[in-house]
Amino acid sequence: MDIVIRDGLCFVDGRFVRANVGVKGGRIAYVGKDDLKGEIVIDASEKIVIPGIFNAHTHLAMTLFRGYAEDLPLKEWLEEKIWKVEGLLEPRDVYWGSLLGILEMLKTGTTAFSDLYIHMDEVAKAVNESGIRGVLSYGMADRGDELKAKREIEIGLRFIKRWNGKKIKTIFGPHAPYTCTPDFLKRVKEIANEMGKHVHIHISETRWEVEYVKSKYGKTPVRLLDDIGFLDDKTVVAHAIWIDDEEMRILKDRGVSVVHCPISNLKLASGIARVKDMHDLGINVCLGTDGASSNNTYNMFEEMKMTSLLQKVITSRADALKAGDVLKMATENGYRAYGLRGGRIEEGYLADIVLIDRKRENYTPIYNPLHSIVYASYGCEVTHVIVDGEIVVDDGIVITLDEDRIIDRVEGLKKKFLI
Amino acid sequence: MDIVIRDGLCFVDGRFVRANVGVKGGRIAYVGKDDLKGEIVIDASEKIVIPGIFNAHTHLAMTLFRGYAEDLPLKEWLEEKIWKVEGLLEPRDVYWGSLLGILEMLKTGTTAFSDLYIHMDEVAKAVNESGIRGVLSYGMADRGDELKAKREIEIGLRFIKRWNGKKIKTIFGPHAPYTCTPDFLKRVKEIANEMGKHVHIHISETRWEVEYVKSKYGKTPVRLLDDIGFLDDKTVVAHAIWIDDEEMRILKDRGVSVVHCPISNLKLASGIARVKDMHDLGINVCLGTDGASSNNTYNMFEEMKMTSLLQKVITSRADALKAGDVLKMATENGYRAYGLRGGRIEEGYLADIVLIDRKRENYTPIYNPLHSIVYASYGCEVTHVIVDGEIVVDDGIVITLDEDRIIDRVEGLKKKFLI
Repeated sequence: MDIVIRDGLCFVDGRFVRANVGVKGGRIAYVGKDDLKGEIVIDASEKIVIPGIFNAHTHLAMTLFRGYAEDLPLKEWLEEKIWKVEGLLEPRDVYWGSLLGILEMLKTGTTAFSDLYIHMDEVAKAVNESGIRGVLSYGMADRGDELKAKREIEIGLRFIKRWNGKKIKTIFGPHAPYTCTPDFLKRVKEIANEMGKHVHIHISETRWEVEYVKSKYGKTPVRLLDDIGFLDDKTVVAHAIWIDDEEMRILKDRGVSVVHCPISNLKLASGIARVKDMHDLGINVCLGTDGASSNNTYNMFEEMKMTSLLQKVITSRADALKAGDVLKMATENGYRAYGLRGGRIEEGYLADIVLIDRKRENYTPIYNPLHSIVYASYGCEVTHVIVDGEIVVDDGIVITLDEDRIIDRVEGLKKKFLI
Repeated sequence: MDIVIRDGLCFVDGRFVRANVGVKGGRIAYVGKDDLKGEIVIDASEKIVIPGIFNAHTHLAMTLFRGYAEDLPLKEWLEEKIWKVEGLLEPRDVYWGSLLGILEMLKTGTTAFSDLYIHMDEVAKAVNESGIRGVLSYGMADRGDELKAKREIEIGLRFIKRWNGKKIKTIFGPHAPYTCTPDFLKRVKEIANEMGKHVHIHISETRWEVEYVKSKYGKTPVRLLDDIGFLDDKTVVAHAIWIDDEEMRILKDRGVSVVHCPISNLKLASGIARVKDMHDLGINVCLGTDGASSNNTYNMFEEMKMTSLLQKVITSRADALKAGDVLKMATENGYRAYGLRGGRIEEGYLADIVLIDRKRENYTPIYNPLHSIVYASYGCEVTHVIVDGEIVVDDGIVITLDEDRIIDRVEGLKKKFLI
């Protein structure tokens, strides 16, 4: 084996069992009791071993605007602050902002993420240098302008063809039904289908958006997308807060995956998605942080805890949405949403694996590691991160990146945005 | 000076300013630009300096049941699980569970806490050994039994007289209006008044409780307590979720402090308190974690982020409850609630001070440290904790406690509760 993880408490098929895990050629090659030999052996006797965490909705380089515009009404936040500084973004800024986001994600056990943003060549470079796995899409919006529509598709296509590879999966990222016309969305979906590509889009994040789409097109966002044939099992929608029961059923019937971003949804006062209902209906729900300007962290342990807690309170049931379901949302479901065979500690799956120190005050005592992970984690417990069979975080250190240099560089960039 | 904190970014009167802080004899003796000489000098040029965090409502030794009973309906959780294992608690268990909780609190910047539990002598011992500050109360409940009422007051009084001291402030802790009769509560409050003692109580945590109290006594919990003269500025009530506008006004008029425990309130599906309204009305709102069986951490940074986020979503306003207000709730307001002059970086205040490493990926860039602290902290950023002028955490290490020993001991205790 290339790597052997020895004697860890491993999350296998929904339960924790003590096992050895063998990794070979980027895949998990063995899980079981056999004594394995490997080039690298990691002693996991004091560790918990979970599948890699998938952050299924990010605008990664918004690390640059982390804490930039706070406690403001949504409209002012977006129009007066975020859009203005995004206008100042140069490609190289996105590179540094992405590296910073990747640094934070790796240190907190995120092995893969799905990003929808601009200057995506720079994000792709950051992914390749860091060793994380990225599902990347250029954020397109035609805003009713035919010329712009054409140009956006060109940029999106060029990016897709250029960067698809071993650790990068390129997909399409039309922004949302309120910034893209139905014709544009239809066209993008058709091209995606021809190429066998996934599509990542924002949907029904705010009440305003739903009202706007209804007033403009006579139907709600989900119905609009369904009517133009946009929804299928290669469609991943972020947010889906303001959907009715019938729309939820449409998402389920079409096999659409939903990315729940609880913290961002609270921070922007957008609302609380009905995750328990979606989960009970059988929708593939995964979790994301959204951008760092509406969160302000890329720490998926926070999203896990928040996801469970919010469903308990909105349903008035302390037994709603169990920890095991939430861990699955943060791992396996994210991989599945984007058509990747990962997120499980199982033979044949991508070797994206996270090791967690279990001897910590906040994990003591451990009655069941599942509850420690979902309800008691800070995010600092991660010791090792393996992506595609390569060790990227070793004993808490991200070995592919120069942490100080990234922090200093981004700290230096901020003056540009102080306008 | 005993300790000089040099050149830190200090939270002074609601803003961050670069200053030197001098500590002498357990108090902050100087804040300003002067170059100070001290026996111990801490270089804070790369650090953020905030007042000590006050965890204003805990059942500390419930660390023993962290993760023990999860994802269960409230009734089953309490009756089938928690009450049963609490019945098995021996005094020494509470000592170890408290040490574990203190360890976690100190490492995450909590300098003081208010605990209401049983076997309180053991909690007091743990407080004294660890160097944290504790406001401690024996949790009393008469449940309508006159003999029990008498005994409970005896135990409470004995504890109060025995342990009040330098770092321990002993107060009264009648459990709640649904476990204590109005006569008992009245009697406790009268004794507390005679002794000049604060009283800490649960109130209106669940809808069930409000209905029960109404059916039994013909009025809601807050009105009941007000009618028996229980409410004044030495009364601290935890939760206060299910209160109406008039009750809120009563709490304000009487000068009662409210402890908001957002995570526990979500986890037990109790509800979301109207913190913004209470804050706007001028009620002294502070924050707490509650016990580790309904949280599962004693990490107050989580409570801060959660407090702001929840108010934004329930008011549909992204500008509701600003970060500065929340930091004040977690620091100054907690000290004020219990009559302690602490929670501010200001001359004459208790020298309870926390230093935070600002050069971290999740704090980058820092446009304003306030937003980093409230919205981007994991809890692992704390480097130094000073309590009553003594360094308790030094460069991330709790120097008063043997971390491994505590973790091993509590891990060993758990088998007793696996019933």
